[in-house]
Amino acid sequence: MSSKKTITMEHGAGGQFMQELIGGMILKNITQRSAGTVGLDDLDDGSTISLPEELEDGAELVMTTDSHVVDPLFFPGGDIGKLAVCGTVNDLTVMGARPLALTCAIILPEGFELSVFEDIMKSMNLAAEEAGVAIITGDTKTIQGNKLDSMVINTTGVGIAPKVIRDNGLSAGDTIIVTGNLGDHGIALLSHREGFDFETKLVSDVSPVNDLLKGPLSLRTEDNQPVITAMKDPTRGGLASSINEMAQKSGVGIVLEESDIPVDMAVNTACEMLGLNPLEIANEGKAVIGVRPEYAEEVLELLRSHKYGANARIVGKAVSENTGKVLLRTSIGSLRQLGMPVGDPIPRVC
Amino acid sequence: MSSKKTITMEHGAGGQFMQELIGGMILKNITQRSAGTVGLDDLDDGSTISLPEELEDGAELVMTTDSHVVDPLFFPGGDIGKLAVCGTVNDLTVMGARPLALTCAIILPEGFELSVFEDIMKSMNLAAEEAGVAIITGDTKTIQGNKLDSMVINTTGVGIAPKVIRDNGLSAGDTIIVTGNLGDHGIALLSHREGFDFETKLVSDVSPVNDLLKGPLSLRTEDNQPVITAMKDPTRGGLASSINEMAQKSGVGIVLEESDIPVDMAVNTACEMLGLNPLEIANEGKAVIGVRPEYAEEVLELLRSHKYGANARIVGKAVSENTGKVLLRTSIGSLRQLGMPVGDPIPRVC
Ligand SMILES: Nc1ncnc2c1ncn2[C@@H]1O[C@H](COP(=O)(O)OP(=O)(O)OP(=O)(O)O)[C@@H](O)[C@H]1O
Ligand SMILES: Nc1ncnc2c1ncn2[C@@H]1O[C@H](COP(=O)(O)OP(=O)(O)OP(=O)(O)O)[C@@H](O)[C@H]1O
Ligand SMILES: [Mg+2]
Ligand SMILES: [Mg+2]
Ligand SMILES: [Mg+2]
Ligand SMILES: [Mg+2]
Ligand SMILES: [Mg+2]
Ligand SMILES: [Mg+2]
Repeated sequence: MSSKKTITMEHGAGGQFMQELIGGMILKNITQRSAGTVGLDDLDDGSTISLPEELEDGAELVMTTDSHVVDPLFFPGGDIGKLAVCGTVNDLTVMGARPLALTCAIILPEGFELSVFEDIMKSMNLAAEEAGVAIITGDTKTIQGNKLDSMVINTTGVGIAPKVIRDNGLSAGDTIIVTGNLGDHGIALLSHREGFDFETKLVSDVSPVNDLLKGPLSLRTEDNQPVITAMKDPTRGGLASSINEMAQKSGVGIVLEESDIPVDMAVNTACEMLGLNPLEIANEGKAVIGVRPEYAEEVLELLRSHKYGANARIVGKAVSENTGKVLLRTSIGSLRQLGMPVGDPIPRVC
Repeated sequence: MSSKKTITMEHGAGGQFMQELIGGMILKNITQRSAGTVGLDDLDDGSTISLPEELEDGAELVMTTDSHVVDPLFFPGGDIGKLAVCGTVNDLTVMGARPLALTCAIILPEGFELSVFEDIMKSMNLAAEEAGVAIITGDTKTIQGNKLDSMVINTTGVGIAPKVIRDNGLSAGDTIIVTGNLGDHGIALLSHREGFDFETKLVSDVSPVNDLLKGPLSLRTEDNQPVITAMKDPTRGGLASSINEMAQKSGVGIVLEESDIPVDMAVNTACEMLGLNPLEIANEGKAVIGVRPEYAEEVLELLRSHKYGANARIVGKAVSENTGKVLLRTSIGSLRQLGMPVGDPIPRVC
C-alpha cells in the first residue's frame, strides 16, 4: 500500500495488495474480531461462531442481511460504516435476537481515497463496539472507477433468539409503541445531500437498538411468553410501511393517535416544506413494538430510561376491525387511512 | 410491476414496488426458502435457522460472505447467480461445514432488464437446489443507472462444521491434492469478455463442491480426527495464492510436481498466448486439499468417483524445509518458486 493513497483494481484481486489493504485498513481498526475458534485474524475462507453452551428450549439462530448504498457516505449523525453495522444489528434485535457476529463485505470503486476508507472502518468499529458484536469475516471487491460511484457495504448478521419475535404476532388489544421521534434519518440525509438550509440542524438517528430493547425483550408473561408480540425497525418506507405490514400479517386493524406520534419539530417543518410525510421516511435507530396491553407502561418506562428511548410513546393499538388497515385518528377525532407507501420518496437513504 | 420491464429506483425503495419485485421475481423462483420457523416467505426482518438437535461435541457454526461483481453477468458455464451461490457454498465447504442457509443481497442499477433479473434468480435457484441449501433472507437496493454498471450480488452463508477445517493445518508429509483442472473459470471469463476466439470452447468450472467433498470430509483417523488437514478454494489468485497461504500459515514448505498439476490444454494454450500463469487464475469449483499421506489414495478415489472430481490429482506434498514457500519441481527436476501473486491478472472475475 505504502505510497498508494487511493484504491486500485488490484486491491480487490486476491493477492498481496488485497492482503495489505485488509491488514492495514480492516484488521487494524476492528476491535472485536472473533466469535469462535476461527476469527477475522485468521483470514481463512470464513470464520466460526461458537454456540452458547446453554440454549433455552426452542432457541433459534436468526440471520439477516442488508447492503448499503447510501449517498453521500457521510451525513449528520453518521456515515455508511455506522449505518451498515446498526442496520443489521437492528434487524436482528427486532427479531428478538442477541447479535453474535457480523460479516463485512465491501465494494470499492477504483480511485476511492484510502483515508476515507479507514475513517469508515473506524466508524464501523465504534458502532460494533457499542452494539457488542464481533465482525468476524468479510470480502473486498473493486470496480472500475467509471462503473460505480461510491463505496458499497453489505453486512450480514447472525444472532441467537431465545424466543423469536415476528412481525405477524399482533392481537387485537395490543398496544403499539414507537421508541422515539420518526423521520430523522431520511430528512437529515436528504437535507444534507441537497444542501437545504433549515434553521435547526437535522441529525440522523442511526444507532444500534439492541441495548435499548434488551430489557423489554426479556420481560415475560406469567406463562413465560414475551410481552412483546411483534416488532419491526421502520427503515425504508418508515412507520407507514412497517405498521401496515404488521397489521396485514397479523390480521388486525391498527388505530394510531396522530397527535401521539413523536416527530421532531424541525423534521415536521422540513416535511411540510418538501411535501413529504414524516411517517413514510426512513429511520435507522427506532423500533415499532406491539406489546400486551397490561405490560405497555412497564415497557414504556424501560424504554424511556434509556438514552435512545427518551421520546418513546404509546401511539395506538391493534383492533379487531378494519383488518389489515392502519387508521390515523386526527386531533379533531376523525379517522383517515395511513396507506402502505408505494416507494420511498428519498432514494439511496441506506 | 405489470407493465414496467426494467428496474426503477422505486424497486429498491421499501414500498409496494419492491414487494411486488420480491414476490414476482424472487419468492416465485426460489425453491428451498426456509431453514427454520421463519423463512423467505415470511418477509420478516430476517429469518431463522433451527439448530440441528444432535451436535457433535465441539461443532461450530461457520459463516462466510462474498460479493460478486463479475463482468459480464453471463459467461460460458454460468452466470452471476450460479457464481454467487457456489462461491459461498464452497467457502463453507472448505471450512468443513455443511451449508445450512444463504442470504441473497442484490443491488440493481436503474434500467436493468427484469427478464435478465429473473433468469439470474432461476440460476441461483438451480445452484442452491444442487447444493441443497436454502435461501432464507435477502435485501434489494437500487442505484441510479449512471452510477453502477451492472447487478451486484452478495451471498452470505451459515453452515455447521462437526470439525472445522482450517487453512493452517498442514504438517510436513501431508499430501496435496487438487480436485480438478485449474484456471478454467478465469480464462473462460476473460476469453468470453474479450471475444478471443480460441479453437476449443473454454467453459467456467463454477459449481458447488459440497457434495464432492462430503465423502472425504467424513473420513476419520483412528483417533477420530479428520483425514483432511487443511483446505481452501482457489478462487482469486488461483492455486498460487491458496497454496502459498496454506504453506505460510501452516509453517511448512510445499513441493509441487509441475507435470502433475492438471490444466486443460485449451487453458494452457490460452495462458501461453496471453502471458498468464494458469496457477494464478481463479477457479470457482475446485478445492486444494491437504491430506494425511496414508489416506491420500482413498481421498483421491472418492474424488475421482464424483463427476466434479474426475481430474483430481495428487500434486505434491508438504515438507519441513523452505518454511512458508512453495516450490515447483519442473519436468527436468529443477525447483523454482511459485510466489504469492501480487494481484489477479484478470479483474472482475467473480
Ligand atoms: N472487508 C473485509 N472485512 C473483513 N474481512 C475481510 C474483508 N475482506 C476480506 N476479508 C477477509 O480476508 C480474508 C480473505 O478474503 P477473500 O475474499 O480473499 O477470501 P475468499 O472469499 O476465500 O476468496 P474469494 O473472495 O476470492 O472467493 C478472509 O478471511 C476474509 O474474511
Ligand atoms: N434479493 C432478495 N432475496 C431474497 N429476499 C429478499 C431480497 N430482497 C428482500 N428480501 C426479503 O424481503 C423482505 C423485506 O426486505 P427489506 O430489505 O425491506 O427488509 P429490511 O432489511 O427489514 O428493511 P431495510 O432494507 O429497509 O433495512 C425481507 O424479508 C427480505 O429477506
Ligand atoms: Mg475461499
Ligand atoms: Mg434492514
Ligand atoms: Mg471473499
Ligand atoms: Mg427491518
Ligand atoms: Mg470466496
Ligand atoms: Mg433490507
